[in-house]
Amino acid sequence: MKGVLLVISGPSGVGKTTLVKKFLEEFKDEVVFSISCTTRKPRPGEVHGKDYFFVSKEEFEKMIKKDELLEWAIVHGNYYGTPKSFIYENLLKGKSILLDIDPHGAFQIKEKMKDAVLIFILPPSWEELRKRLLKRKSESEEEIKKRLAQAREEIMVSKEYDYLIVNDEVNKAYNQLKSIYIAEKRKTNRVLANIEKEIKDSYLISLIKGEGK
Amino acid sequence: MKGVLLVISGPSGVGKTTLVKKFLEEFKDEVVFSISCTTRKPRPGEVHGKDYFFVSKEEFEKMIKKDELLEWAIVHGNYYGTPKSFIYENLLKGKSILLDIDPHGAFQIKEKMKDAVLIFILPPSWEELRKRLLKRKSESEEEIKKRLAQAREEIMVSKEYDYLIVNDEVNKAYNQLKSIYIAEKRKTNRVLANIEKEIKDSYLISLIKGEGK
Repeated sequence: MKGVLLVISGPSGVGKTTLVKKFLEEFKDEVVFSISCTTRKPRPGEVHGKDYFFVSKEEFEKMIKKDELLEWAIVHGNYYGTPKSFIYENLLKGKSILLDIDPHGAFQIKEKMKDAVLIFILPPSWEELRKRLLKRKSESEEEIKKRLAQAREEIMVSKEYDYLIVNDEVNKAYNQLKSIYIAEKRKTNRVLANIEKEIKDSYLISLIKGEGK
Repeated sequence: MKGVLLVISGPSGVGKTTLVKKFLEEFKDEVVFSISCTTRKPRPGEVHGKDYFFVSKEEFEKMIKKDELLEWAIVHGNYYGTPKSFIYENLLKGKSILLDIDPHGAFQIKEKMKDAVLIFILPPSWEELRKRLLKRKSESEEEIKKRLAQAREEIMVSKEYDYLIVNDEVNKAYNQLKSIYIAEKRKTNRVLANIEKEIKDSYLISLIKGEGK
């Protein structure tokens, strides 16, 4: 694959959305955000084709049967999944893709695509995560408890990720996220897959590919 | 190991020295340059303990016998090698180390230390490399021919490196080098080895280490 498949996870309240938005803005010419399918009803403000592809249960089950999903899960009785074709088409074109999904989905993807880059965003402390969730006044105490329990579960598998970022200071965390992406593009396999874009000299290319002898 | 062992190679004329200098300057608080030992005579301006440790043939052969070198080679009749103790001590302290050595030495190191990060600097074209070497008026035509032949050999094994950087524009290449270093520090194993430095909350640490159950 020519592009980088970036999979980002992290508990809710960790500041993942801010990092992702900033990243997609800076790299909009080369990175595409992967939109999930779901059978959940849209929440106020959510847009079909931007936040999710909202589909019916029947449509989703058809996609499962046709093996059209890279990963999928049932959460609170709703289906969520990542369409395969979108991912493969973009990676082959040389586009990179960013997925914002939970560890369950991340591990399913890593299993199918060894080159996927798994990044987990950690809070600087448990207390800080709690505080950040409490600031979201829209959510009930019950909801916050549920999110903290979920955060605990997610953090406990974070060590299976390729990279860990501690989001203590957003600019520092963002710089680390960006660096991971830039570094991954320099990995030898990826450079070789895209070598003609970067080096025009066919003699030098043949040397790099080791065909010079 | 807590620190990152960065091994940088690239043909002479590729602009490696400029990149390395800039990098060591920016990260002087955390990255140490590894100084090689050699039995070669110092060239004008070269300083013992800065450019090389200049040692006698007898001293060098004693180091080989005592297995005190991480890698060594004979080039044009002179010994060159990297002392082990310096590398290990610094990595354990949490310092990162940068080595500027040829592919032969780089592969010896990778074999002994799987975590070493091998970076190869490529020229944008063969012609550009030739031009850059010709600009060095201090060198004879014969010397330049020899360097180009050596460059050819080195580039032909560059695909065995972890990362490739094309030094077309120095600021871009430098940014890539820096990104590789920052990204490598975020690799899960290294973050876990240094977790207490970054996260003070012991409950969160126990979760990250997966000891929460």
